[in-house]
Amino acid sequence: MTDFAKTKALFALPPGVVYLDGNSLGPLPRGAMERAKATIEREWGVDLIRAWNDDGWMEAPRRVGDRIARLIGAPAGSVAVGDTLTIKVFQAVSAALDLQPDRRVILSDSGNFPSDLYIAEGLARLRGGGRTLRVAPPDAIEAALGADVAVLLLTHVDYRTGRMHDMERLTRAAHAHGIPVVWDLAHSAGALDCAIQAVGADFAVGCTYKHLNGGPGAPAFIYVRADHVAGLTPALAGWLGHEAPFAFARDYRPAPSVERLRVGTPAVIQMAILDAALDVFDGVDLKALRARANALSAFFIAEVERLCPQVRLISPRDPARRAGHVSFGFDHGYAAMQALIAHGVIGDFRAPDVMRFGVTPLYVDEADLAKAAAVLAHVLSGRLWDRPEFRRRAAVT
Amino acid sequence: MTDFAKTKALFALPPGVVYLDGNSLGPLPRGAMERAKATIEREWGVDLIRAWNDDGWMEAPRRVGDRIARLIGAPAGSVAVGDTLTIKVFQAVSAALDLQPDRRVILSDSGNFPSDLYIAEGLARLRGGGRTLRVAPPDAIEAALGADVAVLLLTHVDYRTGRMHDMERLTRAAHAHGIPVVWDLAHSAGALDCAIQAVGADFAVGCTYKHLNGGPGAPAFIYVRADHVAGLTPALAGWLGHEAPFAFARDYRPAPSVERLRVGTPAVIQMAILDAALDVFDGVDLKALRARANALSAFFIAEVERLCPQVRLISPRDPARRAGHVSFGFDHGYAAMQALIAHGVIGDFRAPDVMRFGVTPLYVDEADLAKAAAVLAHVLSGRLWDRPEFRRRAAVT
Repeated sequence: MTDFAKTKALFALPPGVVYLDGNSLGPLPRGAMERAKATIEREWGVDLIRAWNDDGWMEAPRRVGDRIARLIGAPAGSVAVGDTLTIKVFQAVSAALDLQPDRRVILSDSGNFPSDLYIAEGLARLRGGGRTLRVAPPDAIEAALGADVAVLLLTHVDYRTGRMHDMERLTRAAHAHGIPVVWDLAHSAGALDCAIQAVGADFAVGCTYKHLNGGPGAPAFIYVRADHVAGLTPALAGWLGHEAPFAFARDYRPAPSVERLRVGTPAVIQMAILDAALDVFDGVDLKALRARANALSAFFIAEVERLCPQVRLISPRDPARRAGHVSFGFDHGYAAMQALIAHGVIGDFRAPDVMRFGVTPLYVDEADLAKAAAVLAHVLSGRLWDRPEFRRRAAVT
Repeated sequence: MTDFAKTKALFALPPGVVYLDGNSLGPLPRGAMERAKATIEREWGVDLIRAWNDDGWMEAPRRVGDRIARLIGAPAGSVAVGDTLTIKVFQAVSAALDLQPDRRVILSDSGNFPSDLYIAEGLARLRGGGRTLRVAPPDAIEAALGADVAVLLLTHVDYRTGRMHDMERLTRAAHAHGIPVVWDLAHSAGALDCAIQAVGADFAVGCTYKHLNGGPGAPAFIYVRADHVAGLTPALAGWLGHEAPFAFARDYRPAPSVERLRVGTPAVIQMAILDAALDVFDGVDLKALRARANALSAFFIAEVERLCPQVRLISPRDPARRAGHVSFGFDHGYAAMQALIAHGVIGDFRAPDVMRFGVTPLYVDEADLAKAAAVLAHVLSGRLWDRPEFRRRAAVT
């Protein structure tokens, strides 16, 4: 039985703050600072160049990948860590295109995170040959599958609403048309019990700074189904994806494993911090985490609906269709969120009118959510969103 | 007048060690740990998601880019920081290809770092249309320029020998054939007084963990000549290169500046550490740094040649043709380097027989180099390279 009071104690949360934005940036695990200090002062400072061997820097992307693999339902050796999620989307979609070289369409949905769509469109242009991105509404994906579709690229969880795709059903439907699937697990990894291998997904990618709490700018990951690895020609043929990088051979020969999707020198310090952050998940049962997230979300929705008639739920009400965050629509959402933050409840805002709240059982409990709902009621009933100090837009919202 | 005793004091060098591998991984600047601690504990830990605005995380790639710009002779606003060098090579070469869309050849040289060649070859394959990589010997580049060459991709300083290309002459020669040039400044930035704008280079890229001391896995940089920016279609169309990332628009519209070459979420912690590392360069005159590097290198070559007849200089003897490291060939170079390291003198080895020594005036002085030469003489005259403990190969050499 996972004890969520114990996991909460593993985070350095600022006193008096309710943090409901772990779906954007997970908070600081206490172990991360200590690990950063060791990596910087002892490994970099003292071991210097020797640390690449002596402190395991070079193999960290695979070792950390194995830890993430467990959290997404993938076998050891199937996940490589590095770069950013956008780069990993590029690699995965390019590899998927190679599986159906005579088809022209990358299919995605309008609920996808914009960067996935931008990068897919850019890749289609770069590879040419009439390749193109087609964007369908999220609930029209199955109908859009067909013999012209080369790749299905979907983000499992909608970043605005928390709406979850049925990964198993869509993967099966795509495969029935011979279409490989790339799942973006940005809002899934660490929030849900994903079963990426069991659903038969071809590729998956994700970031680690949200529910995995790896810190700002933590590296991304990529999963490749075992039978795709040997034939995969990396789109980004970097030296650390080489079979023998330190032979400095003239010819590129990709590594035999998923490590062929490594590119350049790994961000060693961020990788170490991510590794320490993953310690929080040791002993955490993901089914228990998911059940608790559902219970907490239901409680929060009920509290907000009871206290705040001004907002409307835009996340699915059915917990089976909703992931790790809950969103409410409100016309003055930006300013209301600023007022909420000023009162110690941190969520975030997504254009045009989405107030988004991460419900993350590792460090959020009923008391936090009751307080958040009460403060939101105070902000709304007092029309605090109308005050000038909250209406000013920051560069990053 | 730059005081190199003062810059040396800014580094946390382990006692008793002579560090001659700053051309691979620069040592730890004392300010870096303090900055990492502030970024992790205060910004991430306390400010949490608000740090993207409040602590300048979002604009760091441009701010740090401006600091690097000065060090490579580029104007403010011309450099973006992020990703790895390999990714930045991909972006630059792809952009250069677009300037000559009817030409098929990416020209490089056999002295280039393998990752540059791998990524260029992979890009040629990805973009198709008969594009190909042609590799000429370093001294045959001018002869290989012609009307079929779309891009010239060169690393300024040879990673094995320290041999420097004449950046100005080759850029001019390429331009005479209508060929845009991409310079890889991996071993140049922070070691030399580069004048990337003055020579008229089209693009430049580099890493920051060598002579810029940004730490293991520190982000890379890319420079774009001002007149190329507006027409540049990014090969990796990530959301943070968007004109307005947080509008979450369906259409990709690249940022008006060099920031269109940003891709995904920046590695905030590594970026902060790099920023702190660049403080070391405040007040450093790069011409004085270069003059001192030449004097130190000449001293080291003379000492080694006096004491170690077993090795042969493979770097150019002419300081005008040699950059920030000095290399000697020796058949048992791997084992000899291990023995040297065991005796507190850290250089590195590059296949097949290169013993490489970074001569980095910011923290290396004559006493260090005299000791290094003496220890090398001890290793060689005592045939310590023949001992079994030094002959075992590590994973990373």
